[in-house]
Amino acid sequence: MHYRTLFDTGTYVQRRSALLSDLSARTGGIVLLPGHTESPVNYPDNCYPFRQDSTFLYFFGHDVPDMAGTLDLDSGEVMLWGTDATMDDIIWTGPVPAMAERAERCGAAWGGDATALMAYVGGAASSGRTIHYLPPYRAETRELLTRLTGIAGSDLPRRVSQPLTGAVVTLRSVKTAEEVAEIESALAISHEMYMTAMRTVRPGMTERALCGTLQGIAASAGSGMHSFRTILTVRGETLHNHGHACTMQDGDLLLIDSGAESLRRYASDITRTLPVSGRFGGRQKAIYETVLNAQLAGIARATAGRRFLDAHLAAAQVMVEGLKEAGIMKGNTQDAVAEGAHALFFPHGLGHMMGLDVHDMEHLGEDNAGYAGEVERSRQFGLRGLRLARTLHEGFVLTVEPGVYFIPDLIARWTGERRCADFICYDRLHEWSGFGGIRIEDDVLVTAGGPQVLGRPIPKTVREIEEAMRG
Amino acid sequence: MHYRTLFDTGTYVQRRSALLSDLSARTGGIVLLPGHTESPVNYPDNCYPFRQDSTFLYFFGHDVPDMAGTLDLDSGEVMLWGTDATMDDIIWTGPVPAMAERAERCGAAWGGDATALMAYVGGAASSGRTIHYLPPYRAETRELLTRLTGIAGSDLPRRVSQPLTGAVVTLRSVKTAEEVAEIESALAISHEMYMTAMRTVRPGMTERALCGTLQGIAASAGSGMHSFRTILTVRGETLHNHGHACTMQDGDLLLIDSGAESLRRYASDITRTLPVSGRFGGRQKAIYETVLNAQLAGIARATAGRRFLDAHLAAAQVMVEGLKEAGIMKGNTQDAVAEGAHALFFPHGLGHMMGLDVHDMEHLGEDNAGYAGEVERSRQFGLRGLRLARTLHEGFVLTVEPGVYFIPDLIARWTGERRCADFICYDRLHEWSGFGGIRIEDDVLVTAGGPQVLGRPIPKTVREIEEAMRG
Repeated sequence: MHYRTLFDTGTYVQRRSALLSDLSARTGGIVLLPGHTESPVNYPDNCYPFRQDSTFLYFFGHDVPDMAGTLDLDSGEVMLWGTDATMDDIIWTGPVPAMAERAERCGAAWGGDATALMAYVGGAASSGRTIHYLPPYRAETRELLTRLTGIAGSDLPRRVSQPLTGAVVTLRSVKTAEEVAEIESALAISHEMYMTAMRTVRPGMTERALCGTLQGIAASAGSGMHSFRTILTVRGETLHNHGHACTMQDGDLLLIDSGAESLRRYASDITRTLPVSGRFGGRQKAIYETVLNAQLAGIARATAGRRFLDAHLAAAQVMVEGLKEAGIMKGNTQDAVAEGAHALFFPHGLGHMMGLDVHDMEHLGEDNAGYAGEVERSRQFGLRGLRLARTLHEGFVLTVEPGVYFIPDLIARWTGERRCADFICYDRLHEWSGFGGIRIEDDVLVTAGGPQVLGRPIPKTVREIEEAMRG
Repeated sequence: MHYRTLFDTGTYVQRRSALLSDLSARTGGIVLLPGHTESPVNYPDNCYPFRQDSTFLYFFGHDVPDMAGTLDLDSGEVMLWGTDATMDDIIWTGPVPAMAERAERCGAAWGGDATALMAYVGGAASSGRTIHYLPPYRAETRELLTRLTGIAGSDLPRRVSQPLTGAVVTLRSVKTAEEVAEIESALAISHEMYMTAMRTVRPGMTERALCGTLQGIAASAGSGMHSFRTILTVRGETLHNHGHACTMQDGDLLLIDSGAESLRRYASDITRTLPVSGRFGGRQKAIYETVLNAQLAGIARATAGRRFLDAHLAAAQVMVEGLKEAGIMKGNTQDAVAEGAHALFFPHGLGHMMGLDVHDMEHLGEDNAGYAGEVERSRQFGLRGLRLARTLHEGFVLTVEPGVYFIPDLIARWTGERRCADFICYDRLHEWSGFGGIRIEDDVLVTAGGPQVLGRPIPKTVREIEEAMRG
């Protein structure tokens, strides 16, 4: 995998042609797409597992460090840049193909080494041509952009190319069949991880031990990385809990939100919440089914031509209905959602785009990826965390992941402020102290025939989960 | 673990007192030790597992991002800097202690948030006081140092504090009993990994599958990270092969060089080379025992008062003896080693320091950590790769890891040049084509009573390995 592009040459030629034809109609100059360097852990030679920049990977397909790609919007010339290995490199890393061969493999010409790239970009910049680049999110990339373009680090964000950012979002938003197949390949790993978890979870086990087992499965079958840091916790009300320090107890709910990465670097992203004892308690079951109903409502609304904002609001309404039945909320459901009262229990968004990144294209800006100028982002607590609000189209892949949590600090603050008191049964909330949190998440493809939950089904209803945990 | 310092308060107070008393006798100003920020994978919010800077961890003990420590060499004042969590943070990450409490926990005062740190360092710098900092190896740290001190990125390396670097090397080189216990705790994980590998390896298995299994063991028992990227390959002649793409075949040698990280972030680093079939072939056994004899010779010389350079050369001599017996080398052994002829087969150094970093203190500069101004680094191929050459002292922990490899590109080059032809049997080398590589590595503590191989013994002789693989 290391020496070839991830897909066939034609894939990259076609993607770059689409980008060129879209952009060159509107602007000129040079598109500069730097790949990633290695990312040091604790000294220069000890690096994290290499992860290529997703946009470089999308357009050039090489999953190795220290390359860059350029597209000349005026001449149409496409070049791959990078330095050939020395004999010393070859001793340490084994024989590798020449850069010229790598360039050919992705249908580009080899521009030259790092010095040549500096001359090329510097020359273009000093003759007044625009250098289009995307928002840099690694400090190494900022350093490189400053070296190449002469733009000071503090000025880099202001001069990000809006046309390039928009054009990349347009292209990457729609997944081809081969991309969907990769997401399903990541989901096959997730399936094995969750089936293993359901067979393995028991009181007395530590979160860390189970997390390690799941990490081993992901590493054995995929790229060696997770698509994000696993959340695996009996304190699910802490939304991004990466501690893994607890021991699971009878009666606990275990929330596992995890993603694998396929060999070609596509993500999966699944959440299940399991009763550690193997059986949900009565109140656990009631809230679980509320979350599940909200998730099914959200999935049903993930259709082409509809805004995902509406799916979020519809899921919130279903959730309020369930919370009213449980005696936690009250009043008019639509008003409660409009006021954002449900956000005390569901303080995040319904979902996000997915692809090469688990929050796909988030490095291009959350609003660019998920709002695309169509919808203004809300400032309301809860709703402002929604990452995807725009109109969906065929080929979009997204997550649907509602949750209900009892977050002590948040409840204390709202109780003190009597916030949304028409909709929240503050006098009953103490009964739910220590409940924790429940989230359910699947990955959904928008098709002409409606929403399609991707991957082999992972047990999701109360009955399915209890059966799977009985083994 | 996340909220407390890794060891007791007194440990950090004592380490900083030692640093202060060493440095303040020689220089004045402010010591600035920035901790790490999160390190993004593919967008700002999706980060690699957090790994603190080892020197910050050594002196302040907090394993969380976005902190810094300062020591005033003139007043002796020690401060911890960082920003308190907001309610939004608490929803996502759960309740965390206040910064003032964290500061107390490591025996320091809380200086204030990031803005206060900027004012403090900026004020000191503009009143002409020296800001002592260590070599920055992450771009984020370079950005921070530039913001705080006003020193341009390109000027940062030149203005690294030599007194601070030397003082940190002096302190961190000698491990306390509690540090050795942590290394042994990482080695306990390594033991389980290698025993599992020996029970599991069989023809037809992929490198990736085994690597994932070992990763799972490391993650279940340790910090969640390896101390470095695992090398697990049937092409061991590629020294840093991270591909894991091969399927193991009968007759192959599988080289596994891997390290776990303990919960308190100390490293282990072990290499074993296993016959995939469970039994070494005749020539494999001959080379294996040559490497083993070289390793035992190296370990025997890891004693206080002796230079590790001499252990390297002694191991090389034992290796040449074995290679002469195998008909691969010839001539006078001492002359061969002096000429560097063995480096065709053993092109790297015998070992390196170990501790919080698997190449301990390499972020302070390889020569600072391993040569300390005592020995001049050789320019000879092979020997120039030796990371540790200085005189050893009680409490040093280091690796001993000789290897013999048949590297096709290197052999082709030397054959063409007839390099060291008095010592190498070029007419016989074709017989060894495809042999691969063998390396054997243990972690050794220098004690008053001599070298002590740390950790529960992992099968190492031909007989021990074959027995362990029979299960």
